[in-house]
Amino acid sequence: MIVVVAFHAAGAVKSRLEELGFRVEEALAGGRAVLCGSGADELLHLDHLKQLRAWEGVEEVHFSQPSTKVVGQESRIVDLGEGVLIGGDAIVIMAGPCTIESESQIFATAEAVAHAGATVLRGGAYKPSTSPYSFRGMGVKGLELIAAAGKRFGLKVITEVMDPRKVDLVAQHSDILQIGARNMQNYDLLHEVGQSSKPVLLKRGLSARYEEWLMAAEHVASSGNEQIILCERGIRSFESGTRNMLDLASVPVMKELAKLPVIVDPSQATGKRDLIAPMSLAAIAAGADGLLIEVHVNPEQAIKDGAQSLAPAQFEALVPQVQAVAGALGRSVLLPVVA
Amino acid sequence: MIVVVAFHAAGAVKSRLEELGFRVEEALAGGRAVLCGSGADELLHLDHLKQLRAWEGVEEVHFSQPSTKVVGQESRIVDLGEGVLIGGDAIVIMAGPCTIESESQIFATAEAVAHAGATVLRGGAYKPSTSPYSFRGMGVKGLELIAAAGKRFGLKVITEVMDPRKVDLVAQHSDILQIGARNMQNYDLLHEVGQSSKPVLLKRGLSARYEEWLMAAEHVASSGNEQIILCERGIRSFESGTRNMLDLASVPVMKELAKLPVIVDPSQATGKRDLIAPMSLAAIAAGADGLLIEVHVNPEQAIKDGAQSLAPAQFEALVPQVQAVAGALGRSVLLPVVA
Amino acid sequence: MIVVVAFHAAGAVKSRLEELGFRVEEALAGGRAVLCGSGADELLHLDHLKQLRAWEGVEEVHFSQPSTKVVGQESRIVDLGEGVLIGGDAIVIMAGPCTIESESQIFATAEAVAHAGATVLRGGAYKPSTSPYSFRGMGVKGLELIAAAGKRFGLKVITEVMDPRKVDLVAQHSDILQIGARNMQNYDLLHEVGQSSKPVLLKRGLSARYEEWLMAAEHVASSGNEQIILCERGIRSFESGTRNMLDLASVPVMKELAKLPVIVDPSQATGKRDLIAPMSLAAIAAGADGLLIEVHVNPEQAIKDGAQSLAPAQFEALVPQVQAVAGALGRSVLLPVVA
Amino acid sequence: MIVVVAFHAAGAVKSRLEELGFRVEEALAGGRAVLCGSGADELLHLDHLKQLRAWEGVEEVHFSQPSTKVVGQESRIVDLGEGVLIGGDAIVIMAGPCTIESESQIFATAEAVAHAGATVLRGGAYKPSTSPYSFRGMGVKGLELIAAAGKRFGLKVITEVMDPRKVDLVAQHSDILQIGARNMQNYDLLHEVGQSSKPVLLKRGLSARYEEWLMAAEHVASSGNEQIILCERGIRSFESGTRNMLDLASVPVMKELAKLPVIVDPSQATGKRDLIAPMSLAAIAAGADGLLIEVHVNPEQAIKDGAQSLAPAQFEALVPQVQAVAGALGRSVLLPVVA
Repeated sequence: MIVVVAFHAAGAVKSRLEELGFRVEEALAGGRAVLCGSGADELLHLDHLKQLRAWEGVEEVHFSQPSTKVVGQESRIVDLGEGVLIGGDAIVIMAGPCTIESESQIFATAEAVAHAGATVLRGGAYKPSTSPYSFRGMGVKGLELIAAAGKRFGLKVITEVMDPRKVDLVAQHSDILQIGARNMQNYDLLHEVGQSSKPVLLKRGLSARYEEWLMAAEHVASSGNEQIILCERGIRSFESGTRNMLDLASVPVMKELAKLPVIVDPSQATGKRDLIAPMSLAAIAAGADGLLIEVHVNPEQAIKDGAQSLAPAQFEALVPQVQAVAGALGRSVLLPVVA
Repeated sequence: MIVVVAFHAAGAVKSRLEELGFRVEEALAGGRAVLCGSGADELLHLDHLKQLRAWEGVEEVHFSQPSTKVVGQESRIVDLGEGVLIGGDAIVIMAGPCTIESESQIFATAEAVAHAGATVLRGGAYKPSTSPYSFRGMGVKGLELIAAAGKRFGLKVITEVMDPRKVDLVAQHSDILQIGARNMQNYDLLHEVGQSSKPVLLKRGLSARYEEWLMAAEHVASSGNEQIILCERGIRSFESGTRNMLDLASVPVMKELAKLPVIVDPSQATGKRDLIAPMSLAAIAAGADGLLIEVHVNPEQAIKDGAQSLAPAQFEALVPQVQAVAGALGRSVLLPVVA
Repeated sequence: MIVVVAFHAAGAVKSRLEELGFRVEEALAGGRAVLCGSGADELLHLDHLKQLRAWEGVEEVHFSQPSTKVVGQESRIVDLGEGVLIGGDAIVIMAGPCTIESESQIFATAEAVAHAGATVLRGGAYKPSTSPYSFRGMGVKGLELIAAAGKRFGLKVITEVMDPRKVDLVAQHSDILQIGARNMQNYDLLHEVGQSSKPVLLKRGLSARYEEWLMAAEHVASSGNEQIILCERGIRSFESGTRNMLDLASVPVMKELAKLPVIVDPSQATGKRDLIAPMSLAAIAAGADGLLIEVHVNPEQAIKDGAQSLAPAQFEALVPQVQAVAGALGRSVLLPVVA
Repeated sequence: MIVVVAFHAAGAVKSRLEELGFRVEEALAGGRAVLCGSGADELLHLDHLKQLRAWEGVEEVHFSQPSTKVVGQESRIVDLGEGVLIGGDAIVIMAGPCTIESESQIFATAEAVAHAGATVLRGGAYKPSTSPYSFRGMGVKGLELIAAAGKRFGLKVITEVMDPRKVDLVAQHSDILQIGARNMQNYDLLHEVGQSSKPVLLKRGLSARYEEWLMAAEHVASSGNEQIILCERGIRSFESGTRNMLDLASVPVMKELAKLPVIVDPSQATGKRDLIAPMSLAAIAAGADGLLIEVHVNPEQAIKDGAQSLAPAQFEALVPQVQAVAGALGRSVLLPVVA
């Protein structure tokens, strides 16, 4: 840790660091002191060290130690079993409806996406909605339906959990626990999924900086669960022409920083059906390890997000394009064993 | 509700609206049809009506009914008892440390702020922190301490609840349940506090639009609790010179839209001690019903947020300035009965 | 044009529209009037029609006519001569230093990028800089050097013009007139380049919405110059991990809206050398018609933007990857005839 | 200047700094070297020093010298003559129409605002507009009219200049040269007004950070004109409920940083008539030295910005409120000598 401090305040800051167990070296130059502390765990004293910034005379505090202990230490591949690996050479496509609406809807969609090349089935049983008067999902019945549909068509299953009291329930029916953008900093929920044995997909918050997203993953990992997939789904910006602003630079940045698989959700990111294909291809070219795409057997009849859902035929046309771009980069698309 | 739709698609849209129970009038002009639906509850059919936007030929959908049923219907004043009203003529000042650290710290701060003119004591027992290695608060012990300190110095108490499983516990010790910015769209938590008998202070999310903030309040209100205070605490922007960007236009906008009391947190908004006083005065001039200010008996020793906390003497100097600005606008500052 | 207006105000609004020459049809429904005006040129009365929004009783004003008369009417390919077309099947790579520094620097860089596969040489002779104490460019001497280097290595030339008084001068030396992000709404400059015979590359402003970018192009086009290339170079956001936030959704959106070629500048967008390659590939996958990349013979010695410049060997390694992704999408990269 | 650099790269960086004329002290600690350079003018070597960030091994570069040489050195009051000082104890109110439309309109508005308490008359003769089909202003005739109206009613005059070729012309008719938000980084224009003898009002760019705004002022000041007034007019954000987002924290921040007068434009900032009064009062409470308010004799007939213009009676009602808030803070409002 390096602290740049006005000359007159150097003594006080040095003492404080030494009290915390740091060995401090001091250099005087340019009218200021530069203190270099080492020999203790900065994260253990994080709150105190942050407070240094509030001290009279302190100009800059630079941490030497990374802000994480678990995430970013080594590259991870998330293993869903039966050969479905996320973060390896092969790209994984997750597809399905925004919301589970009925048995026929989820089964028909599952069949269509499995046939076209998806390996994971998505669908919400618990839906966060801006309005309390919107549909909140089928709940337990929805969980049972998506689990059955996945099993029937050889697909792994991903669904969202919003309530820390429902983590165990959702984990019984889903292969991946999805944390939505609105809950990226819902720490009680993060700690609860951190104690689950199921992998976690952590969506980026609407206004989350890279470092905050990284730290949210560290909340999960430091609670015990290191099987984490990051999902870029667009951030909030001034542009209203798309629902959110897809930040594809986050893909290489977060892969480097967190050393976790990063996938992209082009449906949420753009809110527009016509933009799903170009943004899916761009995501793969940027290095994404997978895609999370909204597909509905009948988008015009969807309860939610129809405007950002592909029809099965459109999804089926997209997969070979994804394969072509992946191939150009020396990667492939993981295809389902049984479809 | 008014739907502007291409001529060829008008029939299909009209039928769908009639199926939902709307009486539909139609006008043809400029190559398009304008459908006006009435006679049914739009909110009951919200998901279906939103889907209209995804229909082929539909250009615009305008709702006639407000998006809320409870919030915004009539002006509300939140009554904390013993004469402490929020949203009336008198401005309420809430002050205290970011984090409850010890008995002596919270009692000394409570005494100081009561003496200076606060009527509500703030302080966190459960702290959301970007890093899992930061202090997470004293928990139950913290709740007991702040309740005792409030009682001792005649102050009402506000503290944050993050976990839906802890709402009852926090409600036993606090006069107001604070929902933090990170949890503004944590709907399970909103529904839980919506079933409490204690008033709720709902902070604006980091990237929440006015309409989303309004709808978060409606989540609480539609669950049964209409005692809601809104708190502007700055939004996320590109400017890194302050911690957040304080949006004071939100004060008159949300008072008009939600008809709820709106207070301002200049500490979180700016992150800088020197900006607390000017932003407090500006908030009052903009029409805020109160202030939520971080005060610490010894900011340089604070575990958290020392840089944005006032020392007691600074807070004491600020209160008369707040009174002067309030007075210029024909308002006053509510002073504690016993201080 | 459709105006939704309170019943009592309909007469006044109808009269005003008729005075402007519109034929007005009226429908009454849901307690409001819907006025549909046609038969006159909305753009001729734009200011008056916008003012309707300020009128008592007016709720919504929807224009029927597109906001442009020239841009977006038909697809355009910009022809630089000698077979260099921008916006056709072949992707064009523009490369070169941020700033022209010396004869040896621009000639060596030109040779390297021509050899690797660029067809257009970039380089600034007039540099906008946040600080007045930064280098402002070599001026006329720089123009002469880049023109000579382009000619020597068979490259077309692009350079920025900032001052309306220098448009003719820059046009004498450059094949494309670049308008920088800071000047996207410098209307006097737009009108001046709109009277030039040289194609214009219009960078997106730091906080420009799609519609505003489109209208800036219309300023150029309505002044007489319809040879316009759009360039996405990242927008301003809250994320400080990259210099700007690259919005690749703008590529398909603006191609559809403006029907102009759209290229991407991954150097300005990210500010980081390591992100240039993944963002270049992502741009192509998103449908971009070209790339504008900073390349410097010795990035560590560059006067400006060294951190976001590729060394020649890095650029040479990138081109085949761009070709591979382009090929996967059925496109190619335009290669220089002489290199 | 302090450079934190990996141990192995310290030698190379040290040599480079010494070549530039710096005296370099070195401290080794925590596996890194800390180099402190002094004894030379950092701004003279700004481009080279910024490039250090691109060097292999360099982690951080901190400048010791402020980024400006003129602005921020000492507090300035801008003197418009005849007792009109901006930045002193008295608050100056500038008011008038968005656009000069006719002799009768500008004279009637001038009379009304002078009568109500304004000391400076605003009005645009050259108007920047997103659409090329909007009214671009009356030009020279507009300049003559506003100058005459100001003279007639004892008001100073402010009007915008957009084109560097028109600076002298505008300066002949106006007491203050206004630089609009779109042109904050139009450096050729800044240098031209920097050579004028008339004071400059520099509006904040739509996405300008404090430091960039400061540097834009330094562009003007370093060209020779130190009579600069800053104007906060709202920045771009994700919130569409107001036209822009008014950042009142910028008032105390920029007064401290630039030591220049800072005024606020609540009309542009909010775009809504009802928000002008609360935001005007909030601006004064935040410490603003003046207000720039759109007033039109008949807002419903205004060519532009009617929705954000006050009618004379509304403006007249606002002035005493501004006086009351100013008085509460120990300030006053400068009133016109003749009204």
